[in-house]
Amino acid sequence: METVSTNRAFEGVQGVYRHESATCGCPMTFAVYVPPQAKDGPCPVLWYLSGLTCTHANVMEKGEYRKAAAEHGVIIVCPDTSPRGETIANDEAYDLGQGAGFYVDATEAPWAPHFKMYSYVTEELPALIAANFPADMNRQAIFGHSMGGHGALTVALKNPGTYRSVSAFAPITNPIAVPWGQKALAAYLGPDQSAWRAYDATALVEDGSKVPEILVDQGDTDNFLSQQLDPAAFKTACETAGIALTLNMRPGYDHSYYFISTFMADHIAWHAERLTKG
Amino acid sequence: METVSTNRAFEGVQGVYRHESATCGCPMTFAVYVPPQAKDGPCPVLWYLSGLTCTHANVMEKGEYRKAAAEHGVIIVCPDTSPRGETIANDEAYDLGQGAGFYVDATEAPWAPHFKMYSYVTEELPALIAANFPADMNRQAIFGHSMGGHGALTVALKNPGTYRSVSAFAPITNPIAVPWGQKALAAYLGPDQSAWRAYDATALVEDGSKVPEILVDQGDTDNFLSQQLDPAAFKTACETAGIALTLNMRPGYDHSYYFISTFMADHIAWHAERLTKG
Repeated sequence: METVSTNRAFEGVQGVYRHESATCGCPMTFAVYVPPQAKDGPCPVLWYLSGLTCTHANVMEKGEYRKAAAEHGVIIVCPDTSPRGETIANDEAYDLGQGAGFYVDATEAPWAPHFKMYSYVTEELPALIAANFPADMNRQAIFGHSMGGHGALTVALKNPGTYRSVSAFAPITNPIAVPWGQKALAAYLGPDQSAWRAYDATALVEDGSKVPEILVDQGDTDNFLSQQLDPAAFKTACETAGIALTLNMRPGYDHSYYFISTFMADHIAWHAERLTKG
Repeated sequence: METVSTNRAFEGVQGVYRHESATCGCPMTFAVYVPPQAKDGPCPVLWYLSGLTCTHANVMEKGEYRKAAAEHGVIIVCPDTSPRGETIANDEAYDLGQGAGFYVDATEAPWAPHFKMYSYVTEELPALIAANFPADMNRQAIFGHSMGGHGALTVALKNPGTYRSVSAFAPITNPIAVPWGQKALAAYLGPDQSAWRAYDATALVEDGSKVPEILVDQGDTDNFLSQQLDPAAFKTACETAGIALTLNMRPGYDHSYYFISTFMADHIAWHAERLTKG
């Protein structure tokens, strides 16, 4: 692992790091904020998964997470959203290929050799974090935005013992039913839609995956709300399954980092409460 | 005045606007955050002047000022750092010309026709803000970073009745004595160094300009500290003049937005206390 940069912020350290990922078969860059409390011992880890087109840098620069992370003593890890490189498969569209990994393990050509973001964020990167940072890996939580909200929800639902809490900003809650998800899941997983259900938060809940509670914030003037993000089916699935979903519809908020940063401190406080109990 | 974009944030509105500046002779873009308190009446205005290479956008995206502005009910205005355009004079260096206006009114060719940033931020833009936003122009304050810290200090010292308070992050406090300032002031104002003193915070204080108090935060591992920012002469001048300078040296902090954002809320709270008194 190579250190790209470190900057002191809110008495902790915002770092950017790069490593040769065996899972993705290419160098991967990620950001880690270590709060000041780490000098007194390992801190819980809150994973932030980003949305379409983003790298690790977008939320690091615009997400305004450091103040709350430093207050609550939480490490924040921000992975990239896909493998990247000139020799890696790509697509001209913003919603497929590089910058659009959708947190799945691809099985189809030309994506399968490198697009293993599910394994990357659930296995390889956690092992690297555990080995190199003052992280208490028994206290992990996960959140994300849009495609990364989809990632956070599915990763948490598929690994119910691993993450103490899960939340999302404007998540894609039902990718098998919307254009973004249908395009990406068909490309990465092939035409058999039964394989898609393993990466769809609504389907996972319908099929029996469970977490005790979920926090979602969603802007009601988000351009993508009706076509890509509509949380109605997910809400119904959670109600049926007995999952306590808190769905905050936020009047006048859009899909941008102005929205994310507004509710960032609330989400970090919510996770911190669950990460520091017991 | 044209609205480029608006985004809801912290229950207020972050906007970006463009107008034809008569002072600069070109279109100028600026950012304004209007806090939620504006629905109940005019709010005080806190000006943020940015540093070398920046536009209005850098601090808007990375400065993390909206949360504190919304808590305290303060409008934040972020101008650009120079006139811009293909027909406007420029220099290949990052520290002269476009992106490096130094908040002076240039008198020398080729800069004089457009590089009037002092008049722009003290006259034209305030009039535009007063006419178009719910701003209480009797309650103004100013701060900035690096070159913009220089701008804030000199603008406040030259207009002692206009700004109730002034602060800076890592300001250039003595431009006539350091390479950045010597290069820019020689280019914009010509070889007669007596003209430079009107745009040098230390010289202004030495020559009798006065404000009651000044807040400065400075990282002690800032790469530019020894060569460009050394506040010693300014500190001495303030002591001699009876100006209460609070100079916080911050261990381990650099010159970046990670530093600025860390202390942003402190500065806004400090200004708000002075803006909401009386």
